[in-house]
Parts: sequence; structure tokens; C-alpha cells
Amino acid sequence: MKRSNRLVALTNFFIDHPKVHMQLSSFTNQYGASKSSISEDLDIIDKMLKHEGVGYLRRVPGATGGVMYIPYLSQDNCASIIRTLCEDLEDPSRLLPGGYIYMGDILGDPMMVREIGRIFATAFSALKIDVVMTIETKGIPLAYAVANHLNVPVVIVRRDPKIVEGSSVSINYVSASSRKIQTMVLTKQSLQEGANVCIIDDFMKAGGTINGMKSLLAECKANVQAIGVLAEVDDEDDDRIVDDYTSLVKIANIDRTQKHVEVSKGNIETK
Amino acid sequence: MKRSNRLVALTNFFIDHPKVHMQLSSFTNQYGASKSSISEDLDIIDKMLKHEGVGYLRRVPGATGGVMYIPYLSQDNCASIIRTLCEDLEDPSRLLPGGYIYMGDILGDPMMVREIGRIFATAFSALKIDVVMTIETKGIPLAYAVANHLNVPVVIVRRDPKIVEGSSVSINYVSASSRKIQTMVLTKQSLQEGANVCIIDDFMKAGGTINGMKSLLAECKANVQAIGVLAEVDDEDDDRIVDDYTSLVKIANIDRTQKHVEVSKGNIETK
Repeated sequence: MKRSNRLVALTNFFIDHPKVHMQLSSFTNQYGASKSSISEDLDIIDKMLKHEGVGYLRRVPGATGGVMYIPYLSQDNCASIIRTLCEDLEDPSRLLPGGYIYMGDILGDPMMVREIGRIFATAFSALKIDVVMTIETKGIPLAYAVANHLNVPVVIVRRDPKIVEGSSVSINYVSASSRKIQTMVLTKQSLQEGANVCIIDDFMKAGGTINGMKSLLAECKANVQAIGVLAEVDDEDDDRIVDDYTSLVKIANIDRTQKHVEVSKGNIETK
Repeated sequence: MKRSNRLVALTNFFIDHPKVHMQLSSFTNQYGASKSSISEDLDIIDKMLKHEGVGYLRRVPGATGGVMYIPYLSQDNCASIIRTLCEDLEDPSRLLPGGYIYMGDILGDPMMVREIGRIFATAFSALKIDVVMTIETKGIPLAYAVANHLNVPVVIVRRDPKIVEGSSVSINYVSASSRKIQTMVLTKQSLQEGANVCIIDDFMKAGGTINGMKSLLAECKANVQAIGVLAEVDDEDDDRIVDDYTSLVKIANIDRTQKHVEVSKGNIETK
């Protein structure tokens, strides 16, 4: 197969299989090319993925070595997506009762959701993560987007114990913003002891729900490696009970009577 | 920029932007190449995507023309994924009370979910679809996977009217398998009148939930263009009330005492 053809096939493969470890020999067989030809292909692909600011190929030399595609957005790309989000969320028609912001259109846009997932995957790329966890319902697409780029499974915490399959572990927690006692429950077989977990959610006010998920993970003897929220609300009335999180945007000074809201970059590190 | 570099950049772009219409001029500017060079690049990419059985480039000639990547799995690829699913689901340890099958691990695997989404996107590729709709919770990742490949938004029907944002439309329906009256509700601003909708869900027994979504769409004056379910259960006790659906696998002869279940290809057309 010609180099030009191989480059298309290999690029397609890597973009479609993030964080999958591949032996070079599997490519030499499939495309009938020498190891040195494939190696040159990988150099070109690596250079261009970096140039486009979407990721890179991690090479491991030696007989047991291989190659893996790591999605990794450039700082410029991250910053530009977050700027778009901020501008979009400052629209006053998004204001909802109770200090919430309508984000249904953003969370319903698969391409935007994928980009958000890629930002979190980039931010957490140095961490060992075995599984992404979220709570139903709105965080689910974000959790899958992150998991897609990290190539790990998703577990979903349910709010209704009646509908959970098989044996389960559940906790009661106080929602810090509503001051109500709520329940969250997880199917036991969905999470292994000692698993390294990344918690993803769409929205955080005081952090009661996130804190509940942390308690649930402690109950399951799993480790919280990272917490990512799309939007945090900076509300003086609520005492934040979670502090070890990464947020993409921060919503502040919500004023429903004046139809005004300020949205700025969250605590994620970008240029 | 050299052809080899352009091929990587362009392939990455198309895989990441399915069903996005692009003018050739945007590529000529970005990569400093002539229209005829870009056109030759596209020929190579189109040929190789077809060769890999994952999709093709749709070209529209002329001044207003352009190019669009259409994800389209080959029949062989579809059949092979469905075979894997069938074998996996026949594991008797998946049997749950009430004629259900545990699918949490499959629905929690982002790579498998993406493949399932691509099969539905392939099956429905000739249809005009504006939006993918599902009901919380388990169908959500599948709906996003389909929507990703079709480049359309997702709307999620909720089961609890209390948590729906803004004004909403709701219906009561009878779950044909449980014979209970249930409610489903949709935020009004999430769906436009006349929208062409693809319904996606993970599981269908008699079809009461799917039928409920059809009623909800009729209420919203939207059109049902396609219905896709991952698994249908062939149960003699239930009268099927939905017949215009596409299923990937069919589950039959569930016998919990004998720990036995049969899983075969659904009604989707493949070789």
C-alpha cells in the first residue's frame, strides 16, 4: 500500500482508537509495509496532530514497544472553546429560577460535548484513571465524552434505588443548595475496589452532589483521582464543600430581576 | 504544506466533523494548496475510508459545491459488531428478574457505544433527521453516539416532571410490560414543530415506552423518521405495539431457571 493511502488509514485508526496501545507489527502486517516505513508514517502523523493541536502519538521503543494516540488539545484550542462557552452562557435568556442556567442546548450538541470532553481529558491526561463516573441525567453525555478520549468505561450513579439492577450500594446526602436529603445509588458490579475514578458533572453550586459521589466512592473503596465540572456557580450564600475540582466556566452575579449574569473562565489552567 | 501532511490533517478533520459541509476553498486557504491538489487529496481519503469500511466523502461539484464526510460502516463491519454483541449477551449471568438482561457493561463501554451509534447512523443515512431523541437514562449514551455520527442535536425525555426546565409538554402512557401508568415530559424549547426525529433506546419489550415517545412527538407536531433499539425482547406474553423499528439484536427464550437465553441478529438489514 502506498504511503499516502497508509497515512489516511492510520490517521483514521488513531483518531477512532484513542489511548489504545498498538504494536507496530500489527500495522506492518495489515498494510504490507516495513517497520521503518510505518515508523516514518507515525512521525508524519504525530507531527501533524501536534500541528493541529488535537493530540500526539506516544511511542514506546523496543521489542515490546508500540504506539498510542493521546488526545491532547493545545492551550489555544482549550482557551478558544472556553471563550465560546462563556459568551454563549452569558445570554440572559438562559436564567432559570433557583440560580440555575439553561444549558440544554449546549449539552445537547454532540460536537460541543465532544470538545468539552477533550478539554477534561487533556487536563487529566497525566493521571491514572480507570473509570469515569457521573450522576444521572445531565452529566451523562459529558462523562461519555471524557471517557471516550481516555478509553475507559463510564459508571452512572442513579437517584432512584428502585431501578438499579442487582445488588447496590447507596448513600443519603444533603444537597447543599436545596438543603434536602437525597439518595444516590450505584450497582455494585459496576465499580471495582481500588478503581481510580474521575467524577464528571455539568453543574456545581455548593458541591453537595459531588460530595455525595465522593462518599459513595469511599464506601466502594475507590479513589477519586479528578473531579471535573462544566460550570461552577459562584454564590456567596452557599459555602463550597468541595474544593479539589476543575471547572471550565464560572457563573457569578446572577441577577434575574436585572436579567444579568457574568460568566468567566473556571479554575482550569489555560493561557 | 506537503501532501503527506495534508492527508493527515484532512483525515483528522473529517473524522472529527462528520456531516459538516465544507467548501474546498477553506482547505486551500488553510493548507496553502491549489484546488486541484486538495481535490486529489480528497480522492485518496475517500478511497481509503471506503477501503476501511468506515465511511466516504460526498462531493458536490460546482462553485457552491464542497465536500462532506459521511460515516457509513460496511456491511461486513456491521455484521461483525452485531455478532460480537450477540455472543456477549448470551452469557446467562446477565439474566435479571422480569425478563431483563444486564447490559450496563456494554452501555458503559464508550468504544462499543460509538460502534453501535455508527451502525444506526449507517442504517438511517438515507433519511432526513434533524434531532435524535431518547428517554432517560440508559438510552442516553446510544442517542449521543448516533447524533455524533449524524451531526444533529439530542433531546432527552425526562420521567419526572418536577425536574424539567421551563415550560414543558407531558403525556401519560401505559408501560405495556409492567401495565403501570407512567409519565414522560419534554422541555418545550428543546424541539421545534415539524422536526424530523430519530428515536433511540436501549431496550424494547412490548414497546410502551417507544410508543409513549411517539405520542409525545405527535403532541409536539414533530415527525418520527426512524426508531432504533439496541435490543428487542421477543416475548410471547407481550403484544408488540410498535412495529416500525430497527433492532440490532433480538433476545428470545429467556429461561432464568435453566439459566438460558438466545440472542440473535435483530431486524436490521445486513449480509
